[in-house]
Amino acid sequence: MKELKGACIIGQSGGPTSAINASTYGAIKTALESENITAVYGALNGIKGVLEDNLIDMSKEDREELEYMKHTPSSALGSCRYKLKNPDVDDTDYKRILEIFRKYNVRYFFYNGGNDSMDTCNKISKFMLKNSYECYVMGIPKTIDNDLNCTDHCPGYGSAAKYIATSLMEIYHDARVYDTGMITVVEIMGRNAGWLTAAAALACHKGAGPDLIYCPENVFDLDAAMVKINEIYKKNGKCIIAVSEGIKDKDGRYISEYGNDLSNAKDGFGHAQLGGLAAYLANYIKQQTGAKVRGIELSLLQRCAAHCASQTDIEESFSAGKAAVDCAVKGITDKMVGFERCYENGKYVCKTKLFELTDVANVEKKIPDEWFNESKDGLNEKFIEYALPLIQGETRLVKVDGLPRFVRLKKVKVQK
Amino acid sequence: MKELKGACIIGQSGGPTSAINASTYGAIKTALESENITAVYGALNGIKGVLEDNLIDMSKEDREELEYMKHTPSSALGSCRYKLKNPDVDDTDYKRILEIFRKYNVRYFFYNGGNDSMDTCNKISKFMLKNSYECYVMGIPKTIDNDLNCTDHCPGYGSAAKYIATSLMEIYHDARVYDTGMITVVEIMGRNAGWLTAAAALACHKGAGPDLIYCPENVFDLDAAMVKINEIYKKNGKCIIAVSEGIKDKDGRYISEYGNDLSNAKDGFGHAQLGGLAAYLANYIKQQTGAKVRGIELSLLQRCAAHCASQTDIEESFSAGKAAVDCAVKGITDKMVGFERCYENGKYVCKTKLFELTDVANVEKKIPDEWFNESKDGLNEKFIEYALPLIQGETRLVKVDGLPRFVRLKKVKVQK
Repeated sequence: MKELKGACIIGQSGGPTSAINASTYGAIKTALESENITAVYGALNGIKGVLEDNLIDMSKEDREELEYMKHTPSSALGSCRYKLKNPDVDDTDYKRILEIFRKYNVRYFFYNGGNDSMDTCNKISKFMLKNSYECYVMGIPKTIDNDLNCTDHCPGYGSAAKYIATSLMEIYHDARVYDTGMITVVEIMGRNAGWLTAAAALACHKGAGPDLIYCPENVFDLDAAMVKINEIYKKNGKCIIAVSEGIKDKDGRYISEYGNDLSNAKDGFGHAQLGGLAAYLANYIKQQTGAKVRGIELSLLQRCAAHCASQTDIEESFSAGKAAVDCAVKGITDKMVGFERCYENGKYVCKTKLFELTDVANVEKKIPDEWFNESKDGLNEKFIEYALPLIQGETRLVKVDGLPRFVRLKKVKVQK
Repeated sequence: MKELKGACIIGQSGGPTSAINASTYGAIKTALESENITAVYGALNGIKGVLEDNLIDMSKEDREELEYMKHTPSSALGSCRYKLKNPDVDDTDYKRILEIFRKYNVRYFFYNGGNDSMDTCNKISKFMLKNSYECYVMGIPKTIDNDLNCTDHCPGYGSAAKYIATSLMEIYHDARVYDTGMITVVEIMGRNAGWLTAAAALACHKGAGPDLIYCPENVFDLDAAMVKINEIYKKNGKCIIAVSEGIKDKDGRYISEYGNDLSNAKDGFGHAQLGGLAAYLANYIKQQTGAKVRGIELSLLQRCAAHCASQTDIEESFSAGKAAVDCAVKGITDKMVGFERCYENGKYVCKTKLFELTDVANVEKKIPDEWFNESKDGLNEKFIEYALPLIQGETRLVKVDGLPRFVRLKKVKVQK
């Protein structure tokens, strides 16, 4: 394919992670160094920044300052949750995007995000192809959920998994400090896939993890779980349970909705929805056992705890962003950069690999059934073998005065 | 004073911290190396271990393994929340303690804990003095709450403060990733003193902290707070609020109880108490503003996140334990080892200093009024100057396979 000179736009989309900025930085840095790319623009708040002609000039940023992006959590360019319409039904947005691309001679488009973002990327790519506008479009994945299809794992997952496993080990020590009984419920993110909750099994692998792990891949039976919890509690005086926010019963109803239902039935004001799943389960288990029960929700911290990021994840994330630009300038388009795992002399090695955007968009990858234990309340060694390499390496996050030094962008607007 | 040869008992008490084991290890290591101390016993679950003759022999532990205690959160010997009775009313426990002390020729007693533990320590010390049983008793402080009297600060506070400030900085980045509105409420521990919540001001100092900080030192007026929150939210589209779990209204009622009251009035089942203060406030603010609001409770993590400990805190904690033994073998008794701050050539230096147990026990130290801003919803530079040195230094916690390597004690029981 021929070489194409022109500007590039880089956007970030979807929920933040500790590593998405490493990917975006990988793309920005490589683009700034590329001879074919004449200008490097950041789209503020993802595709909305393109639609609203709200771009910043990345070349105006201090190069050394940009380096801090690698360890800054959340999305430095801002994010959005904007879903593009089906272009066959309404192509207004696509026409507008094409208009902006033409205006700035954008020939490269990099979109850094999760499942929905790969869908956006795919639709834009196909629209440009259909309209014969020469533009190389590449998806750069990120998601703590680790649920993107095709790729071995997703940038951002390793850091979240490391934080979750570390926190569970610390909670394990804390939750057994007294010789009195104690049950602890830890709620972990993951609506449909249990990858994040499964990371708690890494703490078990170190002998300091939860007794029970419930993921949304399996039907959750509250009564059956109560039998197990009671059994463990009676034996040890302690019980730690890790649950995905997305666990559902056999009728497909979220357990987290049980609380609302109860409340609605009682007073119609839904007060019980104050707390989430952890609070609901903690309360329920307390009523059933009479034990002291504490509910803990890892909340936003699991996706933004850059101070506990996996350096492996950070480096891989960076490499994904870099590969996207390297491939695009070679004339490759309409792909997502994913990861392929190999073992060289028994050592984990991660290589970037290209996947069709169409294959990735809108498919959710779940934990293979055979990675769960028989009773579906824990993970086996297959999961450990998969996840352990992803959390290796301590973050190189720079600290100043004992606190993280995160990036400070000037965000110089591109003149319209 | 004359030298005294005999055994020592070391116990841990009260809520866990990331640094209490560093103090206990400081005492154990020093005791094991002391010529005057003939045996080093650990009391399992604090004073209960003494009362129940449940002791372990620290000399049976591997010395290199013991070193891991320095960075292991929670209380490695187990803790308790056992309050000794007034000996004038019921001296049963004291007589039992004396019996155990005599049985093992215990001449040194070190108790590592917070406010209540210093009270325990004080009572035991006074009882031994009154009964002319020669025993050197020393209190070693610990509390994330930082509310112990006399000492400049408490072992354990720096690590919790570092975790809180770091997490708040990360939440700051996460909570402003979208261009849509968002209000975030972060609930931080501290029933009567706001030291932990105030640590959020360190994130502000780095330009990435909460907009409002509410501590229990000041009356919390929900209506007045709502005016502020609305103002900030309207201006910025974002608002982050850090609140102590212990904030109270002008009538002395905990705000965290508002939820219960509402619910009890409605259905008598107290469902609304499912969530804590963060959940209640998030729900209330949502109703008042219509904004997207998220409540986050830092929960146990703030007291056990050893992976984010302050190395300054760890070293100081160790030195407090060491000083307790060093002083006791010199014949000093009935004191607590605290800290004195000095500045040498403008540089923070922390020295151990002895305080009367009587002066420490049962007094709660609060944040000085002049360290708050005028509107009492933030801290000023006086607090920053106080707290910043305490969070310095990255933890030397050893990691194996990307996860913390915490201590594994054999806990060899002392033969009764």
